[in-house]
Amino acid sequence: MSSVTAFAPASVGNVAVGFDVLGQALAGPGDRCTARRAATSGVTITAIRGLPDAIPGEAALNTAGRAAQSLLDATDAGFGVELELDKGIPLGSGMGGSAASAVAGAVAVNALLEQPLPTAKLLIHAMNGEYLASGGTPHADNVAPSLYGGLTLVSGGDKRRVSALPVPPGLQCVLIHPHLQIETSVGRAVLSDNLPTDRVIDQIAALGGFIAGCFREDIELIADSLRDSIIEPQRAHMVPGFYDVKNNALDCGALGCSLSGSGPSIFAWTRDVDSEAVASAMQAAFAGHGLASDKWISRLDAPGATIQQQR
Amino acid sequence: MSSVTAFAPASVGNVAVGFDVLGQALAGPGDRCTARRAATSGVTITAIRGLPDAIPGEAALNTAGRAAQSLLDATDAGFGVELELDKGIPLGSGMGGSAASAVAGAVAVNALLEQPLPTAKLLIHAMNGEYLASGGTPHADNVAPSLYGGLTLVSGGDKRRVSALPVPPGLQCVLIHPHLQIETSVGRAVLSDNLPTDRVIDQIAALGGFIAGCFREDIELIADSLRDSIIEPQRAHMVPGFYDVKNNALDCGALGCSLSGSGPSIFAWTRDVDSEAVASAMQAAFAGHGLASDKWISRLDAPGATIQQQR
Repeated sequence: MSSVTAFAPASVGNVAVGFDVLGQALAGPGDRCTARRAATSGVTITAIRGLPDAIPGEAALNTAGRAAQSLLDATDAGFGVELELDKGIPLGSGMGGSAASAVAGAVAVNALLEQPLPTAKLLIHAMNGEYLASGGTPHADNVAPSLYGGLTLVSGGDKRRVSALPVPPGLQCVLIHPHLQIETSVGRAVLSDNLPTDRVIDQIAALGGFIAGCFREDIELIADSLRDSIIEPQRAHMVPGFYDVKNNALDCGALGCSLSGSGPSIFAWTRDVDSEAVASAMQAAFAGHGLASDKWISRLDAPGATIQQQR
Repeated sequence: MSSVTAFAPASVGNVAVGFDVLGQALAGPGDRCTARRAATSGVTITAIRGLPDAIPGEAALNTAGRAAQSLLDATDAGFGVELELDKGIPLGSGMGGSAASAVAGAVAVNALLEQPLPTAKLLIHAMNGEYLASGGTPHADNVAPSLYGGLTLVSGGDKRRVSALPVPPGLQCVLIHPHLQIETSVGRAVLSDNLPTDRVIDQIAALGGFIAGCFREDIELIADSLRDSIIEPQRAHMVPGFYDVKNNALDCGALGCSLSGSGPSIFAWTRDVDSEAVASAMQAAFAGHGLASDKWISRLDAPGATIQQQR
């Protein structure tokens, strides 16, 4: 194999109820990485399309480049790679773009190896790539769903255990991206070092109910539980019109609605309602605050990263 | 029916990983309540055995009496009751004794009604009874397992949704009760109003992993997750030798070990190891701190409250 193109989807981090541990893949938007064996060692970024001026082309400063380097180092690959990146995920959107690039980089380079690693072994390399963008704490809440697809839970502390959570049939995710950027590191910096105990207890109850609801396909329990008492109140002010957007989504019958990652994108889960109507109401609220926006509507069992082309 | 005796089991609140939301029933220890229709209205406690001097006989100050009154009021029963209480759970032990009495009271009185309520409708009345002992916040982490049995999750905020969680086969619970009392209200009072965000995130990951592990019967994930980063550090000092007891349990192969409720009892989950040896090691650690103790070894699918006798 001399050239491989991998696609990795955008994702919603936190999913309201599981800060830093839950994530879900989105069907549709994503980043592509094409990797080629190079004559020189190390990683070289030869092209970045989609958002050429906005992200660093130097491999060590690029999440795809870092993920690729991490994988090459760990496998003693014995060759270098050239990467081309096609960004399909807006920067600073809260849609897991840095994670998707890292995953696409790892998956593409992996396919160039004489003995490719199993998917589970790629997680750490994608995390090593995404670490760059996360503002200091390596975490996998975007990397895991982008790699595996669907709804994922990352637990077990340093062990990085990823569990695929079952998703009741018929659920959809509406994602609205207002034209505004929030860097992940900024989204981290606004968070307090402490949280009120009573809200934490409420959040623990919500996470428990949410996961039990997913396994039991109990939509009512999911709707009761899909909320964020601890992080959303600290970040809502960063997104103009946040509560108007959220209220519009809930008024249209969404099961829950919150920030995607650290925002500014806002997601809502729906079932048995018109997702297009939910999206329109959310976009109208943003428009009322002077913000244009894009929308995506995705099923919740969205696929993870895939190889799209190899030669 | 003129006389009914109900038994309600002791329980482990919090189960380390789910503060105020998880609980599990214990097979063996429990409280009994015998209820009889009375000529007078209201609730009269006619006898308390087991711990006669230590708990209030006045119905309004007794959790069984309050649960009974709550149920009578809600159902317009049209009669009063006399209650006899046989306490099998040590006071201030962290074994859910006040919840068990409340559950036994509600279940016994319910059976006297012309149209008894379904079990799920009794939860709120048992909670109303146990409220008395909880130091201000009505919660169901002991009441729910004592009523339903097994491992329970209470979520949904004020909605008090109870989910039975599946328990992988072969698990046991070792519970050691040192001869020491901690009132629930005191166990609450030591808790800070704030928690460090990083520990909360760790705890959220742990709870997620734990519940997913239960549904997937993934013992390794349960063992990785059965821990308490937020409450145990604040309460451990209340129990002399806590860390010695815990370390002994883990050294003997326990999957996890923490306070039962607000303590002083300490529980450990085991599988594929000698639970008697775990218990002995835990008791030896308490003895090293001058504390005599009792032990119980229970399966994890312990039954909930039952009617034992009716005439």
